[in-house]
Amino acid sequence: MKEKRGHFTLPGEAGYEELTLRLAKTWGADVIRDSDGTKLSPEIAQAGYRIYSTICIIREHNEFAAAHPDAQQQCFLMSDPVTAEGPEVRISPLEGYFTEQFEINDRPEAMEYWEVWDRTAGVRVPREQWTWADGTVTVSGCAPYHRYTVSFLCWRIWEEINMYNHTTNHWTSEHLRQLDPRHPEAWKFLQEWLENWCAENPQTDVVRLTSLFYNFVWIFGADPRRRTRFTDWGSYDFTVSPVALKAFEAEYGYALTAEDFLQRGRLQATHRPPTPAKRDYMDFIQRFVAEKARTLVEIIHRHGKQAYVFYDDSWVGMEPYGKYFASIGFDGLIKCVFSGFECRLCAGAEVPVHELRFHPYLFPVGLGGLPTFMEGGHPEKDALDYWLHVRRALLRQCVDRIGLGGYLHLTQGFPAFVDTMTEITDQFHRIRGLHAQGAPAALPLRVAVVHTWGRLRSWTLSGHFHETDGNALIHINEALSGLPVEVEFLSHEEVRGGALKGFDLMICAGRAGDAWSGGDAWKDPELTAEVTRFVYEGGALIGVNEPGAVPGGDTFLALAPLLGVDVDDGRYACHGEWSFETEEAPFPVAAEALAEKPGVRLTAGDTRVWAAAGGVPQLTCRACGRGRAAYLSGFAYSPAAASMLLRLMMTLTGKTGEEAALADHPLAEAAWFPGSRTLAALNNGEAPLETEISYPGGKIRLALKPLEMRFVTME
Amino acid sequence: MKEKRGHFTLPGEAGYEELTLRLAKTWGADVIRDSDGTKLSPEIAQAGYRIYSTICIIREHNEFAAAHPDAQQQCFLMSDPVTAEGPEVRISPLEGYFTEQFEINDRPEAMEYWEVWDRTAGVRVPREQWTWADGTVTVSGCAPYHRYTVSFLCWRIWEEINMYNHTTNHWTSEHLRQLDPRHPEAWKFLQEWLENWCAENPQTDVVRLTSLFYNFVWIFGADPRRRTRFTDWGSYDFTVSPVALKAFEAEYGYALTAEDFLQRGRLQATHRPPTPAKRDYMDFIQRFVAEKARTLVEIIHRHGKQAYVFYDDSWVGMEPYGKYFASIGFDGLIKCVFSGFECRLCAGAEVPVHELRFHPYLFPVGLGGLPTFMEGGHPEKDALDYWLHVRRALLRQCVDRIGLGGYLHLTQGFPAFVDTMTEITDQFHRIRGLHAQGAPAALPLRVAVVHTWGRLRSWTLSGHFHETDGNALIHINEALSGLPVEVEFLSHEEVRGGALKGFDLMICAGRAGDAWSGGDAWKDPELTAEVTRFVYEGGALIGVNEPGAVPGGDTFLALAPLLGVDVDDGRYACHGEWSFETEEAPFPVAAEALAEKPGVRLTAGDTRVWAAAGGVPQLTCRACGRGRAAYLSGFAYSPAAASMLLRLMMTLTGKTGEEAALADHPLAEAAWFPGSRTLAALNNGEAPLETEISYPGGKIRLALKPLEMRFVTME
Repeated sequence: MKEKRGHFTLPGEAGYEELTLRLAKTWGADVIRDSDGTKLSPEIAQAGYRIYSTICIIREHNEFAAAHPDAQQQCFLMSDPVTAEGPEVRISPLEGYFTEQFEINDRPEAMEYWEVWDRTAGVRVPREQWTWADGTVTVSGCAPYHRYTVSFLCWRIWEEINMYNHTTNHWTSEHLRQLDPRHPEAWKFLQEWLENWCAENPQTDVVRLTSLFYNFVWIFGADPRRRTRFTDWGSYDFTVSPVALKAFEAEYGYALTAEDFLQRGRLQATHRPPTPAKRDYMDFIQRFVAEKARTLVEIIHRHGKQAYVFYDDSWVGMEPYGKYFASIGFDGLIKCVFSGFECRLCAGAEVPVHELRFHPYLFPVGLGGLPTFMEGGHPEKDALDYWLHVRRALLRQCVDRIGLGGYLHLTQGFPAFVDTMTEITDQFHRIRGLHAQGAPAALPLRVAVVHTWGRLRSWTLSGHFHETDGNALIHINEALSGLPVEVEFLSHEEVRGGALKGFDLMICAGRAGDAWSGGDAWKDPELTAEVTRFVYEGGALIGVNEPGAVPGGDTFLALAPLLGVDVDDGRYACHGEWSFETEEAPFPVAAEALAEKPGVRLTAGDTRVWAAAGGVPQLTCRACGRGRAAYLSGFAYSPAAASMLLRLMMTLTGKTGEEAALADHPLAEAAWFPGSRTLAALNNGEAPLETEISYPGGKIRLALKPLEMRFVTME
Repeated sequence: MKEKRGHFTLPGEAGYEELTLRLAKTWGADVIRDSDGTKLSPEIAQAGYRIYSTICIIREHNEFAAAHPDAQQQCFLMSDPVTAEGPEVRISPLEGYFTEQFEINDRPEAMEYWEVWDRTAGVRVPREQWTWADGTVTVSGCAPYHRYTVSFLCWRIWEEINMYNHTTNHWTSEHLRQLDPRHPEAWKFLQEWLENWCAENPQTDVVRLTSLFYNFVWIFGADPRRRTRFTDWGSYDFTVSPVALKAFEAEYGYALTAEDFLQRGRLQATHRPPTPAKRDYMDFIQRFVAEKARTLVEIIHRHGKQAYVFYDDSWVGMEPYGKYFASIGFDGLIKCVFSGFECRLCAGAEVPVHELRFHPYLFPVGLGGLPTFMEGGHPEKDALDYWLHVRRALLRQCVDRIGLGGYLHLTQGFPAFVDTMTEITDQFHRIRGLHAQGAPAALPLRVAVVHTWGRLRSWTLSGHFHETDGNALIHINEALSGLPVEVEFLSHEEVRGGALKGFDLMICAGRAGDAWSGGDAWKDPELTAEVTRFVYEGGALIGVNEPGAVPGGDTFLALAPLLGVDVDDGRYACHGEWSFETEEAPFPVAAEALAEKPGVRLTAGDTRVWAAAGGVPQLTCRACGRGRAAYLSGFAYSPAAASMLLRLMMTLTGKTGEEAALADHPLAEAAWFPGSRTLAALNNGEAPLETEISYPGGKIRLALKPLEMRFVTME
């Protein structure tokens, strides 16, 4: 019994068969899935729905792990520094780390990679100056009052998603371990296991891989006052092992060291520009992951099943915009979404089926740590809040499917959630239907978002919105996800090579030294010159926060000569400032979206200021040659901020907007579907509003209810 | 007729003889002086007072300057950058500069130092690629969309103090020019002129030099929206000339270039650590200034007069804490003061007589640009406000004389000012009398303020408080100026060499990369190790704002491992933070003195937080070895902040305070003069207060009126 609407994946739950089948009808599901922690009963599995079965391939093999402890995954850690008060220093490497997660690996092949550093002098201590015995590294011949650290390898003895669920959702089951597919016996075992699993689960239509092999990085600390020592959703640090390092060395002709990963204890966060060695290593891992994933997909296909991948958790090395993703052969990509940019990330990936897993997950506690499906939770509000972000992105580019995950029985106390999801699925089908009749109209405005990672990290930085919301760029991406413009993500190398050709506008948004601002990439004068050429020849530039900041130049922002704005890193000590009058901008300014950033100053007398706070410019515009450049001190996403960004982009590029639908109210948005001559109008605000919407060939005045999405089909 | 009290210098004014002599009596003057813009009449000069005559030696010789334009002072300037839209760029070097101040010097010996730079690439353009004709530099073979600048020498055709007075006080007299004593004919002329002047002014007792040769740097812009392009009260940029550069090259064996001064247009502000070449050049200029000044002082002495120097205006190269100052042989040092730190600067200099010139100057408009002796001005409030800062410093270390400057007639409409000055002179004599009977008691607490300049810039940074008040250190210095502790200023080299021996506490207060924080000095691991040793062996450390910040280390603040606090420059992306509870500090915290500084984070679990705002630590303390280290996110001077600093220093060093007088109210201060067994108690607040004051051997409870200074002599 397929429900008529379909395109919806419901998490079923054994023991709640009636509920499962009832909600499948209510929400029009065509697929039922299991989840991490739930099973499907035969009654559900045989009810005529397509079945997704969730597999985390490297987990749930504790028996094998116990028999092959050397097949477990590893990572490098750096001990906390110890100050030498005498000639000898003793260091317990794991002190300060969570010993339920880590276990020291002092096998000979691992010891080869251990290092001791004098961190005060920044030099490695010769191997003959330290010993390892009884859980302690003893360093001799220390320089007085220098600080010493030990870099070491350790096993990760608790799979991190399982660790998270124990910690957050009070699970008490056995701690799951994780296998490294680079270990030959483990890899053999995993393939056989998948073969058997496929054979034993004939009812499964789609194997839903969660995700592949290597989790993003979570390093826990011993002290609850600093439980999370490090979390990076794009880090490759959990892919390391002596075997991997040897294979890398054999292929690349140079050896990586602990320091390549640890970087004086800072690790190489995705927010920072990578070293050349890290770029090599990432490519090395991406090829390994793709190759092994391809083998798994082949097994699944051989059993007549499809392979969908969930792009979260153990995603490392399989980024959908990476060079090797398409080669894996996945049949579908499932992305959990809080935000619009995540929809665009999913929708734009090169894979047959794009599916969104909505939030909230049917768990007692949400990812932010607040209650959802428990006392004090308001899951219907959460769902609606995420939907407001998602729907505007879906209007720009749609996906094929939506769905939920978790414990279905938790919905029982929350009828409002059930109703809200019903409404959301209805709206999704409306949007999907419009796209089926042709793409929505867009302005002829091609936007290049330029940063270190370029296409690899299209739309996302390195995790969900709330993990990266200190970065202006994720707010920019979120705004762009629902705007009627074309968006691509370019690296500095691509820009240097002329990739801005054909674009109307470039955005650079980041903080000094980060991957988004660009860091040392801007030391290349030809990059600056190329962007200057782009603007002088008529292109538009938007710089946000500290765009293209790099010490050593004659300005702090490499883009300052275009923007007519710089940020004082101290170099302007004693330098007078241009005074200015704030002029009215040619569009409504969402002042609350802009930061009050000390040190911002005009460096050109012809820079126009459209917003300022405390005497410091926040939004400026300047003509350069035939182009225009705007500076924003910061950007915090809101519907009004998105509207401001669109109007700013149109002002800078001289676009008048008649090619697409535009609402004149900052809290309203619109999309025009020429194939069905249908206008989709959004009220993004919590109050009723009236807005005039122009669309190709007409204008209409609409009164929209709070948060309403209205569809109007024209004659 | 000498008035009985004396030690007061009154500015007399011809045409106001009665007023002059009346106020001389009222304020108990023993000296009458002229000022910039006023003369003394014979009636005043012969009234029995000692006479100071003000001379600005390099100014007021327009006739000579007209005949010898090449004897005028010079400087390097850098043109604003011009972007190459084609292969050729044309630059008018002076565009954007104030042409009443500057005139291009294109004589052959100057052209030798001109340079053209590609600022985008950071490379100098070969000489054969540019030409100079008709006021324009034409650069050929430009890289597309690179920016080009011209570095050039120019004459300074308007002495800057005169320019300031024209601009601010609406003077309309002839623009004065200034001579460079390095020009042989000018130097001969100046000596002869001084000889003649001394011979022609027999009534003058003291020649008051304002100051010597080279003004601090003021570079004016053409556009009133940025009239001041650069102002640095400690800069040496106005000492430059081809002759000086050649002499430097001959002596040091290497040549300085325009870029040594211009530094990509940033110039070398005193707030930034100097290059080695700048250090050499400063020593070169200091020796030149001292040598020439010695000759002038000898002329003055030969005429039976004394030579006092006013340490402001053309002070460059004669810093009172410089290596050569004492060798000049001045009889007195006169310092204009707004603040306590300026009193200490004057009082501690190696010279027979120390005199303060109080503010407000008797001018219509004050240095901050606000009205003083004109409608809307409240000069009595200004005077009292400065006095509140000055008196607490005078209680610690006294000077010999005080005085005023300017147009005496302006006081006529301001009787309250006359009364306030009478009260201030009374209080000064009380304080001076106490010091005459022996120094005040101090705590056995020796404080080393450590920064790039060390002793050379003791107490001051590079100007008055209001010119440098964005720097935490000037606030710290102001607080220290009135506290019962010993203070010295050390350079990093001195610390590295063991100079902290004998000190109880070290202070480092600055912003990343500035001369006060230390910049690259902290790349030397032995500096960090030495400070670590100092603390571990029992010393105390106070770090303020971004102390010892330097990129490239394993922490951003080199002192972070001691402080247990670091500042995130982006390196902590993805790193978890220590949560903390704010504990009650063992002294009253002046919360408004601390900054809300984003990015401050604990790096050690044992760092105690005594103040925080917005979840970010503001005041912390940590035990390290046998010592203690405290971090302050910022420090803004106020009486309560000074009290907090004293209590913090006592807490860190374990001093209990019985050796000196201490008030238990944060707005009260006290000094104990054992020689006369007199307690001086200050109410620094604008409300009455009661405080208990402990002093060696006793305690007393006092009720103090607003702003009162009370003297209590014990049995």
